[in-house]
Amino acid sequence: MEKRQLLYEGKAKRLYSTNEEGILWLEYKDSATAFNGEKKASIEGKGQLNNHITSLLFEKLKAEGIDSHFVQKLSDHEQLVRHVEIIPIEVVVRNVVAGTLAKRIGLEEGQPLKHTIVEWYYKDDELGDPLINEDHISILSLAKPEELTVLKEKALEINSILTRFFNEIGVDLIDFKLEFGRGKDGSILLADEISPDTCRLWDSKTKEKLDKDVFRRDLGSLTDAYQTVFTRLGGVSS
Amino acid sequence: MEKRQLLYEGKAKRLYSTNEEGILWLEYKDSATAFNGEKKASIEGKGQLNNHITSLLFEKLKAEGIDSHFVQKLSDHEQLVRHVEIIPIEVVVRNVVAGTLAKRIGLEEGQPLKHTIVEWYYKDDELGDPLINEDHISILSLAKPEELTVLKEKALEINSILTRFFNEIGVDLIDFKLEFGRGKDGSILLADEISPDTCRLWDSKTKEKLDKDVFRRDLGSLTDAYQTVFTRLGGVSS
Ligand SMILES: Nc1ncnc2c1ncn2[C@@H]1O[C@H](COP(=O)(O)OP(=O)(O)OP(=O)(O)O)[C@@H](O)[C@H]1O
Ligand SMILES: Nc1ncnc2c1ncn2[C@@H]1O[C@H](COP(=O)(O)OP(=O)(O)OP(=O)(O)O)[C@@H](O)[C@H]1O
Ligand SMILES: [Mg+2]
Ligand SMILES: [Mg+2]
Repeated sequence: MEKRQLLYEGKAKRLYSTNEEGILWLEYKDSATAFNGEKKASIEGKGQLNNHITSLLFEKLKAEGIDSHFVQKLSDHEQLVRHVEIIPIEVVVRNVVAGTLAKRIGLEEGQPLKHTIVEWYYKDDELGDPLINEDHISILSLAKPEELTVLKEKALEINSILTRFFNEIGVDLIDFKLEFGRGKDGSILLADEISPDTCRLWDSKTKEKLDKDVFRRDLGSLTDAYQTVFTRLGGVSS
Repeated sequence: MEKRQLLYEGKAKRLYSTNEEGILWLEYKDSATAFNGEKKASIEGKGQLNNHITSLLFEKLKAEGIDSHFVQKLSDHEQLVRHVEIIPIEVVVRNVVAGTLAKRIGLEEGQPLKHTIVEWYYKDDELGDPLINEDHISILSLAKPEELTVLKEKALEINSILTRFFNEIGVDLIDFKLEFGRGKDGSILLADEISPDTCRLWDSKTKEKLDKDVFRRDLGSLTDAYQTVFTRLGGVSS
């Protein structure tokens, strides 16, 4: 496989085309950003850890019947993925109150929810990724109602699998963000990444934060936290 | 009917108990507030106009089969209403892009929507009345799913009736906010007010604003605008 031209550079990853139609070359960067890009840093080793953790989780999900864009890991910070048309909705799944949910509805961070919450956010940096509802999605033609049903079903299924998986390694899955895309045939595929950048992960016993909140809230070494997650997941650093 | 003790004083109205069980005495005040109370003024004649307009619209809705808390108008700034347990959700219905919708989803104010949008806001001043979804409503136990179905149906029906009614008098109903309450028997009743304080109303031809945006955006005399609405509705000032 050959890496060809840069198609898109985001805050955390670079996307390149390849010599194979429909296959992208994904490069994880070492940059950390928060608060819609207002806080920034370069953190050596972060891209690599996210690449390893995402690859491992997508493989785990595949074994449980959840297809994703993931094809294979190429190196410490690179993977091959299937090219999809990203649905511009961030699907957020929450099991415990944290972050913006605490602010929105006035419940205390750490409070378990009596049932899982699914939220839609419009993937639009200029608008600050606002919360939206099904009517807004329809007006903006972001996704069809049938697609939303699939997104919600898949998000909840992924939540069950990951919650169990993390539980086994002493980690609480507090909340996470997913992105989905449309494949050539219109089928919906899990895409982007699942990493401590996109999940809130707390140590089950100590409630220590093992995710991007370490960076957002200046709680210590981000790579130490991410490395803990990777090691517990059974990953071996190269 | 006798007015008894003050039960609640809000930004726009005062609620008193009466000698009759289940009946409240509602007093419209002359105060105007915007941006969650940050901007304030006292505007003589506003309370009276809102009382007259709300009474007229609730009567109109009643004639079309929509029950509300409204019992009767008592004076220029007072009415009797049935006491309900207010459901702490502001139900917002939108036909044309304006206000916070323009900011949220990045469409231009004045653009007609291809279909009506219904939004739920958590009635909580401290939290700034945030947009919420059905999952948040369930977590906070604000309303049952069956109640939300009723709220949405009623809101859309009220929208059809009011849109037609305002059209006949050369006014576009851009958007509006409703509050509902639970009666003694658990039935859901339209409550609070429907006035230029809670609707966006634009002159159909000139697109001149005839609502609280006149105050929010300093566009001229608020009572002139409200008086225009009242006069076109066939109201006669006392
Ligand atoms: N399989 C895929 N096919 C096409 N695009 C993808 C795929 N997986 C992820 N993407 C997109 O590639 C980009 C990944 O870059 P990155 O995560 O750095 O973006 P970002 O900084 O989060 O910005 P944004 O997501 O707002 O564009 C995202 O826009 C993501 O939606
Ligand atoms: N029939 C009713 N029974 C009980 N309460 C009612 C009824 N109709 C309206 N209310 C409530 O009375 C109050 C009306 O006061 P007002 O409109 O001034 O409140 P506000 O300043 O908008 O503040 P808030 O609505 O946030 O309390 C509102 O809280 C409204 O929900
Ligand atoms: Mg991203
Ligand atoms: Mg009010």
